[in-house]
Amino acid sequence: MKDYINQNKDRFINELLDLLRIPSVSADPAFKGDVLKAAEFLKQKLQEAGADKAQLFETAGNPIVYAEKIIDPSLPTVLVYGHYDVQPADPYELWDSPPFEPVIKDEKIYARGACDDKGQTYMHVKAFETMMQQNQMPCNVKFMIEGEEEVGSVNLATFVKANTELLQSDVIVISDTGMLANDVPSVTTGLRGLSYHEVEVTGPNRDLHSGLYGGAVANPINVLCKMIASLHDENNHITIPGFYDNVDELSKEERAEMARAPFSLDDYKKALDLSDIHGEAGYSTMERNSIRPTLDVNGIWGGYTGEGAKTVIPSKAFAKISMRLVPHQTSEEITELFQKHFESIAPPSVKVVVKPHHGGEPVVTPTNSAGYQAAAKAMEDTFGKKPVPVRSGGSIPIVAMFKSVLGVDTVLMGFGLDSDAIHSPNEHFGIFNFMKGIETIPLFYKHFAELQK
Amino acid sequence: MKDYINQNKDRFINELLDLLRIPSVSADPAFKGDVLKAAEFLKQKLQEAGADKAQLFETAGNPIVYAEKIIDPSLPTVLVYGHYDVQPADPYELWDSPPFEPVIKDEKIYARGACDDKGQTYMHVKAFETMMQQNQMPCNVKFMIEGEEEVGSVNLATFVKANTELLQSDVIVISDTGMLANDVPSVTTGLRGLSYHEVEVTGPNRDLHSGLYGGAVANPINVLCKMIASLHDENNHITIPGFYDNVDELSKEERAEMARAPFSLDDYKKALDLSDIHGEAGYSTMERNSIRPTLDVNGIWGGYTGEGAKTVIPSKAFAKISMRLVPHQTSEEITELFQKHFESIAPPSVKVVVKPHHGGEPVVTPTNSAGYQAAAKAMEDTFGKKPVPVRSGGSIPIVAMFKSVLGVDTVLMGFGLDSDAIHSPNEHFGIFNFMKGIETIPLFYKHFAELQK
Repeated sequence: MKDYINQNKDRFINELLDLLRIPSVSADPAFKGDVLKAAEFLKQKLQEAGADKAQLFETAGNPIVYAEKIIDPSLPTVLVYGHYDVQPADPYELWDSPPFEPVIKDEKIYARGACDDKGQTYMHVKAFETMMQQNQMPCNVKFMIEGEEEVGSVNLATFVKANTELLQSDVIVISDTGMLANDVPSVTTGLRGLSYHEVEVTGPNRDLHSGLYGGAVANPINVLCKMIASLHDENNHITIPGFYDNVDELSKEERAEMARAPFSLDDYKKALDLSDIHGEAGYSTMERNSIRPTLDVNGIWGGYTGEGAKTVIPSKAFAKISMRLVPHQTSEEITELFQKHFESIAPPSVKVVVKPHHGGEPVVTPTNSAGYQAAAKAMEDTFGKKPVPVRSGGSIPIVAMFKSVLGVDTVLMGFGLDSDAIHSPNEHFGIFNFMKGIETIPLFYKHFAELQK
Repeated sequence: MKDYINQNKDRFINELLDLLRIPSVSADPAFKGDVLKAAEFLKQKLQEAGADKAQLFETAGNPIVYAEKIIDPSLPTVLVYGHYDVQPADPYELWDSPPFEPVIKDEKIYARGACDDKGQTYMHVKAFETMMQQNQMPCNVKFMIEGEEEVGSVNLATFVKANTELLQSDVIVISDTGMLANDVPSVTTGLRGLSYHEVEVTGPNRDLHSGLYGGAVANPINVLCKMIASLHDENNHITIPGFYDNVDELSKEERAEMARAPFSLDDYKKALDLSDIHGEAGYSTMERNSIRPTLDVNGIWGGYTGEGAKTVIPSKAFAKISMRLVPHQTSEEITELFQKHFESIAPPSVKVVVKPHHGGEPVVTPTNSAGYQAAAKAMEDTFGKKPVPVRSGGSIPIVAMFKSVLGVDTVLMGFGLDSDAIHSPNEHFGIFNFMKGIETIPLFYKHFAELQK
């Protein structure tokens, strides 16, 4: 199989470059036609690779590319999820080469979507072609490639709910995350959830002169600051009653596993120009931003923010406050706890309104699941070392949706790097990573099939 | 004297209306010509009233109108300060009648500057005319009427420092404040000072994704909120070490005097739509906003403040923080204490910069001073009751400047009302107040001369 991949390396790359030339920006209606072209391109390639039922499923937004290959109903089925839409490329002037005219420099492909997620999605298409050509399909496979991931996957849940039969599978594999380094393979085993709120604190019914009223009325900014400050204690634990009740505490073993990930605090601090880190007592930096829930103010505003000095006591102050959640917290539960608590700590001298925004559920892939085990073995085969299980601090809400609607676990087997500059100018994807993905995926199928026996 | 005033009432009012027709807005260069016209108008009227040396002193900005009448060098001298410039009138659409076309409605003159400060300044001009016409000038008088009060009196100090001889006097009287009510005369005995700062808190060197970094790095907004919250204790005392060291604690008697001012907490709360007040323990609302120093955040900003949700940890957060000062705090001392303290409470995980803006010194007129006594007696004569001494929470920096440069105390004998809407649309000044001022001022001269014997 490795030979086939090497012999076709140049073609694989050139096909990806063709896909990258299509500016399928989902956020901007001006690119609607290109979005459809990208969908057609993938449908076409899946067909050529030997898939059946290759088609576009219409949605209220952009179509979902579907294709499948059922070798034998008795074999386990892998459902591959990816997305063909990309982030907007602006600011264009910060790109060293045009975002939709891919170039290869020092073994990296530079283009919008090179990594996120066209490059990683296309690894699966070419791995599938390879298995088909070599008559080594150890599993059935289904592809579900959407075109709205960068705009919140707004129509995906509707599609999934309407097609639970069609999407029946034993594991979902997504390559839309990264590895720690090219010589430190890793598999993402968890994602944090989210509970996001906007709060409004109202003091006097109009802006007041701070000379004539200062000291005698509650200043909504001072009050908001006091309320926000009270949400963490001196150990940076969150003080909302019940906040930690359902938090899944990791075992010593799991924490030890995590700690194997190479990490330099000095490099971390240098990269962010920090003289000191900051976080919950009793946890390492890697744990603080992955397996622990957090509360951050994402924005705050009130009063006079222009040049110079204005002596005003504003009528209102605002903040956007979000919490990252971990298993087994739920956004619904935390949203309710936050709202109740924040209203309860408001002094009688102000009025407080809490408006919940969207939420998302945390997910975790147990390292003892067949999916994780198969990914770990496959990576060990191709990288020559066991991958590190990594809990990511970010959120991919669809993973929880797949679990709840389809009842299937997801494996987050990504081959990108943090340094790939996804969502930024000069996004790129290493040819090493692209090829390693194509090599590793068939072995994932193989190990998964064996584990299912 | 009363007869003369009554006989000339209509003329006095008409002359004021002429002055009010001149749009002498100092903030807008477009009105430069009108500003000069207003200065010329006053110089003219002072001359006609019998003043000598009536002239305009050039400054780097608008001229200062000066005039004097030295009856007898052995008599005490009163220095009258006022200003002929006015606030911009916009938003024009909120005026019921054009701001520079004065109209009289239910015994009130409506126009920009009607009260602040053309009306109150012109009371002094007409009181002077009256004393001259009646050959009853118990004191010498000097007029200093500037044209930049509404833009910070930027050139006044230079003029005063250059003319200390010319401005020699025994008391300075300013009518640029208000009374509690037409049946509750009052004299302003104190003003608060100011120390104003902009603070900047920097965490990571760039905005970060709150999912990938949340919990592991200091969020500058959360840190800023904690720092601000720590500036007040549970009794709303300010926690800056040494902050209260020089605060002048009023005597029981003085506080009792103040408490005579009619005040309804319910009305106060209703007017501001507050369910509860808020302030320093151990002091009344009237005391909190006048004789006590305060700390207020006048503005705060950082992170994402647009529509919807963005999960960012910003690199920086900012706030504008000001303190109102009371005798005998100095803005220099407090500015230094604040700066040192605020930097000292910053955790090592952030960088803090404190930029001091302008300051102003607090002032107080002792109720036992000749100036206050004379004002109190004069008001008692015309209102039939003793005026209430009132400490105002606002700042008029020039009063402290007069004291330090000329060594002369100021009496703040104002005849306006809080309801006169100065600086706002439909500014007005009651004819009752205008005439009461003209009646009261000569009696102030009389009593002051007697007290100086």
